[in-house]
Amino acid sequence: MKAALLYEGKAKKVYQSSEDEHQLVLSYKNDATAFNGEKKSQFEGKGRLNNEISSLIFQRLHEVGIKTHFIKRLDSTQQIVQKTNIIPLEVVIRNLSTGSITKRLGIKERLAFTPPLLELFYKDDALGDPLINDEHALLLTDITETELAEIKDKAREVNGALQEIFQSIGISLVDFKLEFGRNKEGEILLSDEVSPDTCRLWDIETNEKLDKDVFRQGTGDLITVYQEILNRLEVHV
Amino acid sequence: MKAALLYEGKAKKVYQSSEDEHQLVLSYKNDATAFNGEKKSQFEGKGRLNNEISSLIFQRLHEVGIKTHFIKRLDSTQQIVQKTNIIPLEVVIRNLSTGSITKRLGIKERLAFTPPLLELFYKDDALGDPLINDEHALLLTDITETELAEIKDKAREVNGALQEIFQSIGISLVDFKLEFGRNKEGEILLSDEVSPDTCRLWDIETNEKLDKDVFRQGTGDLITVYQEILNRLEVHV
Repeated sequence: MKAALLYEGKAKKVYQSSEDEHQLVLSYKNDATAFNGEKKSQFEGKGRLNNEISSLIFQRLHEVGIKTHFIKRLDSTQQIVQKTNIIPLEVVIRNLSTGSITKRLGIKERLAFTPPLLELFYKDDALGDPLINDEHALLLTDITETELAEIKDKAREVNGALQEIFQSIGISLVDFKLEFGRNKEGEILLSDEVSPDTCRLWDIETNEKLDKDVFRQGTGDLITVYQEILNRLEVHV
Repeated sequence: MKAALLYEGKAKKVYQSSEDEHQLVLSYKNDATAFNGEKKSQFEGKGRLNNEISSLIFQRLHEVGIKTHFIKRLDSTQQIVQKTNIIPLEVVIRNLSTGSITKRLGIKERLAFTPPLLELFYKDDALGDPLINDEHALLLTDITETELAEIKDKAREVNGALQEIFQSIGISLVDFKLEFGRNKEGEILLSDEVSPDTCRLWDIETNEKLDKDVFRQGTGDLITVYQEILNRLEVHV
C-alpha cells in the first residue's frame, strides 16, 4: 500500500499510496510532543489509539454529511486518505476558555464562548505558529476570501458535529485544532486528524482531562485517557 | 481651561475641560517610551512638536471630511478635543512591512501591502497589547460587528488621507496606529493623536526615518526629526 515517504510530522508519517496517485497512507506514530516540540516522549500504543479514534470520528462526520479527506482505516495504526494540499493554517475553535488564550487575553478560565471563538494560526514551526488575522491569512496563503469564509463555516459545522459526538459520550469539547487541504478537484476538505492530540476533552461529570494536556502538564497517563476516549467512542458512536 | 486630571498616559495628560463637560484638554508631555515602556527618556520640546503636528494633521483630516475628536489647538503643548470613551483597540495600518510584523510572520522588509494591511491589538499594557482578531475584539470590547466594520473603514479612509498629506511633503507613510472613541452622541471618532510617535515616516528620497524609530533604535535625534516633520507640514499643508 505504501510507496515513498512524503513527509514526517510530529505525530504521523505521510506516505504516497502505491495504488492510487491521489491517495495517501497516514501512519500514526507513538511520539507525543508539546510546546512546539520542546517536550517530547513516546507512548507505546499512542499511534494505534489516535488512528482508531480519528477513523471513528471521520466516519461519524461523514455520516452527518461533513466531507473529510478520510477514505478508510487501513490497519491498526494507518488510514488511507485523499491527497490534499494542506493550507498552512491551524483553525482553532474554542467553546470554553482554557490554556494559552486565558493568559494571552487576560480572560478567566472556563468562560463559555457564545458563539464559539474561532482563531487562525499560521502553521510555521520556525515562527512558533503565530496567531494571525484574516488579512494575514490571505497574505500568507493562496486562499481567496471566499475560501477563507468557507473554511470558517466548515470549522463551525465540524464543531457542532463534534460537540454532539462527544456530548453523547459524556465529554465536553473544550477546544480543538483543524487543518484543511485542497484535493485534486480543488475542493477544500477537512484533513489531518481529530484526536485527543488535537482536541481538549473534559469529562462532563468529573472534569477529568482526557487529552494531550495530561502529557503537557504531566498530570496523568496519556495511554489510559486516550484508551478511555476510544472505549467510549466504540460503545456509543 | 483645565479642571481635574483624568488620566496620565505615556505621552499625554488628559484633563477635564473646565468650560465644557464634554470636552477634554490633552497636554502633550516630553516623555518618549518604547518597547511597552521598557525604554524611557525625556526630550525638551517633544510635547510641543507632537501637539503642533497632531493639530495640523487633525485639521487637514477635517478639511477632507474625516471627523476626529479634535476641536482646536489651545497653546503650544495642548489641544482641546471632544470627550470620547476610548475603545481599547489599537488599529494598525501597514502600507510597507517593517519592524515587528517581519519577525512575527517571517516576511521580508519593505514588502508593499496591497491592499494595506489592517491589524487590531488589544490595548492592555499588562498583556503587552496583544494582536487580536475580529472575534477577540467583539469579545473584549463593547463594540458591535457593525461598529467594528465602521472602525476599519474609517481607518482605511484615514490611511488614504494621511498618505496624501505625507506624500505631499516627500514622506512615505509606512505604518501607523490609530485609536477610536465614542462621543456623547455615541458617534465613533478618530481620537488620540497622529504624530511621529504613532506613525512610521520615511523620507521618500533618502529613506531617512523621521519618527520614533530614531529613539527606539538609537539612530538619530528625536527632536531634529520631529521638527523636520513639523517644518514640512507648516510649509506645504
